[in-house]
Amino acid sequence: MAASNVLQVGPHTYAVPVGMHAEQRQRLIKQFASAPANSYILLEGGNSKVTFKYDSDADNLFRQESYFNYLFGVREPDFYGAIEVATGKTTLFAPRLPEAYAVWMGKIQPASHFAERYGTEEARYTDELAAFFAERNVSLIYVLEGMNTDSERTTQAANFDGLDKFRVDRSTLHPVLSAQRVIKTEEELKLLRWLNDVSSKAHIEVMKTTRAGMAEFQLESVFLHNCYFHGGCRFMSYTCIVCAGSNGATLHYGHAGAPNDHVLKETDMCLFDLGAEYHCYCSDITVSFPVSGKFTADQRAIYEAVLDANLRVQRAMKPGVCWIDMHDLALRTLAEHLLRIGLVHGGSVDELMEADVPALFMPHGLGHFMGLDTHDVGGYGAGTLPRPTRPGFKSLRTTSVLAPNMVLTVEPGIYFIDAVLDKGLQDARQAKYLNNAVLQRFRGFGGVRIEDDCVVTATGCENMTKVPRTVDEIETLLCK
Amino acid sequence: MAASNVLQVGPHTYAVPVGMHAEQRQRLIKQFASAPANSYILLEGGNSKVTFKYDSDADNLFRQESYFNYLFGVREPDFYGAIEVATGKTTLFAPRLPEAYAVWMGKIQPASHFAERYGTEEARYTDELAAFFAERNVSLIYVLEGMNTDSERTTQAANFDGLDKFRVDRSTLHPVLSAQRVIKTEEELKLLRWLNDVSSKAHIEVMKTTRAGMAEFQLESVFLHNCYFHGGCRFMSYTCIVCAGSNGATLHYGHAGAPNDHVLKETDMCLFDLGAEYHCYCSDITVSFPVSGKFTADQRAIYEAVLDANLRVQRAMKPGVCWIDMHDLALRTLAEHLLRIGLVHGGSVDELMEADVPALFMPHGLGHFMGLDTHDVGGYGAGTLPRPTRPGFKSLRTTSVLAPNMVLTVEPGIYFIDAVLDKGLQDARQAKYLNNAVLQRFRGFGGVRIEDDCVVTATGCENMTKVPRTVDEIETLLCK
Ligand SMILES: [Mn+2]
Ligand SMILES: [Mn+2]
Repeated sequence: MAASNVLQVGPHTYAVPVGMHAEQRQRLIKQFASAPANSYILLEGGNSKVTFKYDSDADNLFRQESYFNYLFGVREPDFYGAIEVATGKTTLFAPRLPEAYAVWMGKIQPASHFAERYGTEEARYTDELAAFFAERNVSLIYVLEGMNTDSERTTQAANFDGLDKFRVDRSTLHPVLSAQRVIKTEEELKLLRWLNDVSSKAHIEVMKTTRAGMAEFQLESVFLHNCYFHGGCRFMSYTCIVCAGSNGATLHYGHAGAPNDHVLKETDMCLFDLGAEYHCYCSDITVSFPVSGKFTADQRAIYEAVLDANLRVQRAMKPGVCWIDMHDLALRTLAEHLLRIGLVHGGSVDELMEADVPALFMPHGLGHFMGLDTHDVGGYGAGTLPRPTRPGFKSLRTTSVLAPNMVLTVEPGIYFIDAVLDKGLQDARQAKYLNNAVLQRFRGFGGVRIEDDCVVTATGCENMTKVPRTVDEIETLLCK
Repeated sequence: MAASNVLQVGPHTYAVPVGMHAEQRQRLIKQFASAPANSYILLEGGNSKVTFKYDSDADNLFRQESYFNYLFGVREPDFYGAIEVATGKTTLFAPRLPEAYAVWMGKIQPASHFAERYGTEEARYTDELAAFFAERNVSLIYVLEGMNTDSERTTQAANFDGLDKFRVDRSTLHPVLSAQRVIKTEEELKLLRWLNDVSSKAHIEVMKTTRAGMAEFQLESVFLHNCYFHGGCRFMSYTCIVCAGSNGATLHYGHAGAPNDHVLKETDMCLFDLGAEYHCYCSDITVSFPVSGKFTADQRAIYEAVLDANLRVQRAMKPGVCWIDMHDLALRTLAEHLLRIGLVHGGSVDELMEADVPALFMPHGLGHFMGLDTHDVGGYGAGTLPRPTRPGFKSLRTTSVLAPNMVLTVEPGIYFIDAVLDKGLQDARQAKYLNNAVLQRFRGFGGVRIEDDCVVTATGCENMTKVPRTVDEIETLLCK
């Protein structure tokens, strides 16, 4: 065992101590004080079989399953990890590789190599799982079975030939581990800060490169290259969203049906939502700026409304504050600015809120937990309020009360989405507040989002994201 | 219908005519002359559900299923395509999207949009599939069910609620369509040539950037950036293989367990196997060169042996030639050079071949079909010889007799793979030919592979790959 090992991608990238995962395992078993003697926690790592070229012999590049990475940090596919609840003693189970692996894939390492590399007490082979638990006369095996509250996808609980011979608990582990992942360890925060620096710097390079006439995907390419070349980030946290002009009103632009393939115009606003991944940890940053490098009056008005909402939320964030109230604060801030700009009229902020008018401009949630998943787990854990039903609020990915070492994105926005605005104009409750004359001017504008990755501290909020944010800072950077 | 449409990624990338797919559909139905009246061919496109972050709400970027792309060129997930066998009249079936799509993913297009965009006679919704076939009183529906001869993975035959009400043929389509994909159309060749240019230019940029002290993945990043920025290639054809030094002896280096994370040394040979994908079509190019920019005597000897094999094969390729014989020619060429270098001794080329000695240095097949899949389908179609059993030969991905418009890679190599060489040294049949004293000098050398993408022409072979290949060309490019 080498608990002092680090995991790295090239000499100039972040060195993840394997002890980070050991600490996370220790935290976990403390939650199992009432577990029976001689019980184990067992997780199955991601497998190498899932591929979208499913009928060819091409494999996707493997990326570890998030819970498994959280506890073990193992980069290779087809592993299991078992934790003895009483002691935290950890055993990795490596796949037994065929002889041909040495020709095609690389040196075949003995199981002990992985115990050494990942700092666990022991490592064996996956075909020894049944024997391992039988030898130990195990009383209970906890496996990870549960549903992601956002996607409603379910984890694949560990399984092996012979598991049915043992007593298995399928319900305890998932809520405990999901809740644990919400509160980041100091080592996790160090990694997330470093990764946020990588993504922040890449965003700045993209901003400086942006010119009218370029295609959106070319700026995606610049971002990817900066993150991988300088940060060793082989994956992104999510599909890159690189919008120019009206595309900024498509919240999840960039997918196969809208693949960042438009050409930038001088008059466009850009909305670039891009974040690199490292060691399966995420970053998630959005910048908005004019292609021209100089904000028009309308661009500035929308931008400063969103920035004000972003900053007010960050100033209000601290332990004890409920995330629903932060969403409310953001919408109220936007409402004030929408009134001033003249996009809405004829009512007070309270009346606009009552009629869900601000949500016509920001139909998504204010932000989400971030960690191993971009939209990290635990958003609707035990003790949190149920998912709200009001427009906008219902898209919140958590209703938690903030606590130290939670990591959340703060990402208010204003968008001009035809489908949403047209519905508002047809709704008597909302239409009276919409100033259609001014609204017309903003059709096709796209949107502005300002997204930072924030840590809740003992007394407030730490913003890990370091990109130019004020109009002055952006215009200075882009000064051509 | 707009058969003159093109599909493109930004204004400076290749414009794929949708007519390419129309021609491919026409070719297909000609193979169904004996089909019953009023029969249809039905394919189901790739779906949006396959993801390796299976318990989160992150989705992989969708890439179309290859057969579906071949016939329809559709970029969006969850489609079906039906072809009336008698007429070739084609109907696309688009998923009916929920209202929320307009907020998150973009404008909801009517089905007719996709008929227009992809140049088909008609488009409907996937929930209309059963009604569509019922209205037409269809006699038989051909679906795509079959096994990939390399991976032994199976296609997912089209299925929809109500398919069981119709007569379905599950065996005819797969061998016909796989065989058709082997012979490229002129439009496919145009696309493949353009794509090979993109990858060739990116390789040249990578070679010029390479320096001791860099990490392998940084050169991967340079390749990715060049292909995406200049070519709009968002995917690679396969996981990038970026080997320095001894890593060159790991044939499929670059996977999660060996993620291109070593640092280059001045004395290393590089072996970079990298190819971009565009419109689901592949390129697959390997370059080998010294980090120093100047070949040592040993590096030159190995390199020129491999280059000789590559060139002799390309000179011999023409219609009527069997691919097994090309593999044999490559190994015999390598044997001559191995004798001259002194790595093997004590026998003639025939004796070395008889003892499978050259295969100790090149344990993989000479090359493979390439098209929509890197290792393209149809390698062991009807009428081809069965998979050979001899070392090296058994890894051949096809035993076909060459015919015009086949596309194959030509990729001989010499590798110093400890596991393979040690086995040879323990095999009395082979050990006597191995010169262990010289072999020792090459332990840790890694490998050299020279891979070109070639089209079989009416009279010979066209090499689509345009990178420096001779020692002089490479040293001139790298002159520092
Ligand atoms: Mn976000
Ligand atoms: Mn190849």
